[in-house]
Amino acid sequence: MKTTLSHDVLSKAIATVRTKSPLVHNITNYVVMNNSANALLAIGASPVMAHWKSEMQEMTSIASALVLNIGTLDDPWIDSMLAAGKVATERGIPIVLDPVGAGATSQRTEASLRIIHECHPTIIRGNASEIMALVDASVKSKGVDSSANSQDALESAKQLAQTYNCVVVISGEIDYITNGTEVHTVEGGSPMMTAVTGMGCTSSALTGAFAAVMDDPILAATAAMAVMSMAGERAAQIARGNGSLQMHFLDELSNLHSL
Amino acid sequence: MKTTLSHDVLSKAIATVRTKSPLVHNITNYVVMNNSANALLAIGASPVMAHWKSEMQEMTSIASALVLNIGTLDDPWIDSMLAAGKVATERGIPIVLDPVGAGATSQRTEASLRIIHECHPTIIRGNASEIMALVDASVKSKGVDSSANSQDALESAKQLAQTYNCVVVISGEIDYITNGTEVHTVEGGSPMMTAVTGMGCTSSALTGAFAAVMDDPILAATAAMAVMSMAGERAAQIARGNGSLQMHFLDELSNLHSL
Amino acid sequence: MKTTLSHDVLSKAIATVRTKSPLVHNITNYVVMNNSANALLAIGASPVMAHWKSEMQEMTSIASALVLNIGTLDDPWIDSMLAAGKVATERGIPIVLDPVGAGATSQRTEASLRIIHECHPTIIRGNASEIMALVDASVKSKGVDSSANSQDALESAKQLAQTYNCVVVISGEIDYITNGTEVHTVEGGSPMMTAVTGMGCTSSALTGAFAAVMDDPILAATAAMAVMSMAGERAAQIARGNGSLQMHFLDELSNLHSL
Repeated sequence: MKTTLSHDVLSKAIATVRTKSPLVHNITNYVVMNNSANALLAIGASPVMAHWKSEMQEMTSIASALVLNIGTLDDPWIDSMLAAGKVATERGIPIVLDPVGAGATSQRTEASLRIIHECHPTIIRGNASEIMALVDASVKSKGVDSSANSQDALESAKQLAQTYNCVVVISGEIDYITNGTEVHTVEGGSPMMTAVTGMGCTSSALTGAFAAVMDDPILAATAAMAVMSMAGERAAQIARGNGSLQMHFLDELSNLHSL
Repeated sequence: MKTTLSHDVLSKAIATVRTKSPLVHNITNYVVMNNSANALLAIGASPVMAHWKSEMQEMTSIASALVLNIGTLDDPWIDSMLAAGKVATERGIPIVLDPVGAGATSQRTEASLRIIHECHPTIIRGNASEIMALVDASVKSKGVDSSANSQDALESAKQLAQTYNCVVVISGEIDYITNGTEVHTVEGGSPMMTAVTGMGCTSSALTGAFAAVMDDPILAATAAMAVMSMAGERAAQIARGNGSLQMHFLDELSNLHSL
Repeated sequence: MKTTLSHDVLSKAIATVRTKSPLVHNITNYVVMNNSANALLAIGASPVMAHWKSEMQEMTSIASALVLNIGTLDDPWIDSMLAAGKVATERGIPIVLDPVGAGATSQRTEASLRIIHECHPTIIRGNASEIMALVDASVKSKGVDSSANSQDALESAKQLAQTYNCVVVISGEIDYITNGTEVHTVEGGSPMMTAVTGMGCTSSALTGAFAAVMDDPILAATAAMAVMSMAGERAAQIARGNGSLQMHFLDELSNLHSL
């Protein structure tokens, strides 16, 4: 793994998540709930998955970060996301948005933009197609997989970051993390990671954990992507296929104490 | 694994899925979403799990196959399945129906029949009890597990295939795949597979991937069952229990390039 | 693993679940559905996950136990739980309630109490915070994790058991199982189990399986906790992290035939 983030910042970030064990409130998709919860536990955070609109006020009030992921969206879930996002905004806790499949359907693009406008996410993390679709509605995704390279989306990411005053992460062979002016990168991981469902969603969940305990969202997002890359790289070295990659990834994440 | 499908057809089917990487739109149950997505990725297809009625028109429009699985059904999900099914029918892409638990409750049997009548699935895959319940509503399942042998359901499967002009697959110790006249079989796999949740659902998902790239649905369905059987057999040889069977199954599926 | 349950009762309990393979109807959360189904299969039971209100009458009518878990609650799910609970009560089959996150939000505490009042669960299983919150609404949980030791909750558990004439289980380093007067304990397991999501939910699901085939709910609940502890202990000895712990846990559970 190679990153522009300093070794010290990354080491301290991991230690801080493990020490503070922040409660991360996730409203995420059905496919990855189990993986995301396990990844958050593995890095030392405390996950809660909750989407009942009636409890959003109270649940988001005890959380240190909110992660919104539109992977299996439906009308009542949008309502809950907006309700939780409002609480998070009022409390000033970081919000991470994962616009899964933006560009695949116009409904997903529009729902993502609505969440952006109403909830002002601190960090938006997506693949290249998703990030590009949020800037230019004519960009199309193939389902939830990207049809572009992460580098192609860098200008879109900068524009998105500037327009909405947030940090934008593009996942890919190289991850780009930008606040509109600065750009951090993370290289590494493994191509095998694209053959396991929900790795992007996991990185959004971990981004919530780091953002919960770090003041600077660009550093938090970069730390999360670096951790994904390290754990993925180590897991891929011993995995026999995409079943064991998922297992080894969680093991490596839970063993990631120092660098 | 023993099958009536020719070695050449099966080899070519696997290669074609890997080359074309068809987008398979799944409206499936909560229990298996993660496994089904990973199995589709492992065989080389591109899965999308989406059930939001508002996006069914657009999502099914970019897919190469639609898989409807009623495992954890609810009213809004039926609406979405019917909406997606209508788009798939209009576009002429294959629809796979998995009538999970048909026969366990009359609601599941009726919902399955409604989907059959309105969406005209290309392939219906179920266990013996489920297939029999679709022909004779007096047949009862024990929950989602079969209370009959696959062979017992063969006449029902043929009748179902003829009535609705589709291919019917009965999963079991021997899998039967019929279009009402021809019958293909797949033997093999492992009894351990019945101790892992969602193996049937996974085979329906894979059937969607093969049907997406093959013209003849009986060959596509047989190829999917053969692939399940091969991967399951190999996984069972090295599994210590049903936890590792699931992992090894995905590994074997992702390593299945040639026969 | 150390328990106050006799070796003979435990051995017979495991054998009986495997022989009778009871159908356990689960209305549970999205995070753990897959794990809970696999754990039930691993111990020899037959799981069904179903929450469609229209089929609750028929589905609960064929089940031998009902497990209600509020982990990812929402209004329609409460309705389905109450409907299924009514059928279970009328039929006299055991109901297990897992009040996930009671104390984290008042909505969860109230929903749990409503289920208790209307459905009269046979067994309530939670962590210390959850059990205490059901007795004293001023007790707060940190999300779905406990902020108290299991021993701290023992008086609350006894009170809850006496008030509602049920068995109460507190999971923790030591598990306490009480009917208000008698107390059974299970010691063992592994601290690693708290780093895997859904272990508590799995123990509630297994409690359903044992309660389905045993007359005395305090023995059934203790047997389930003992089985969790044994499988968790063995899994932890060979696990490299929380990914492999989950897998080994299911393997050990499926290999648990004798003691």
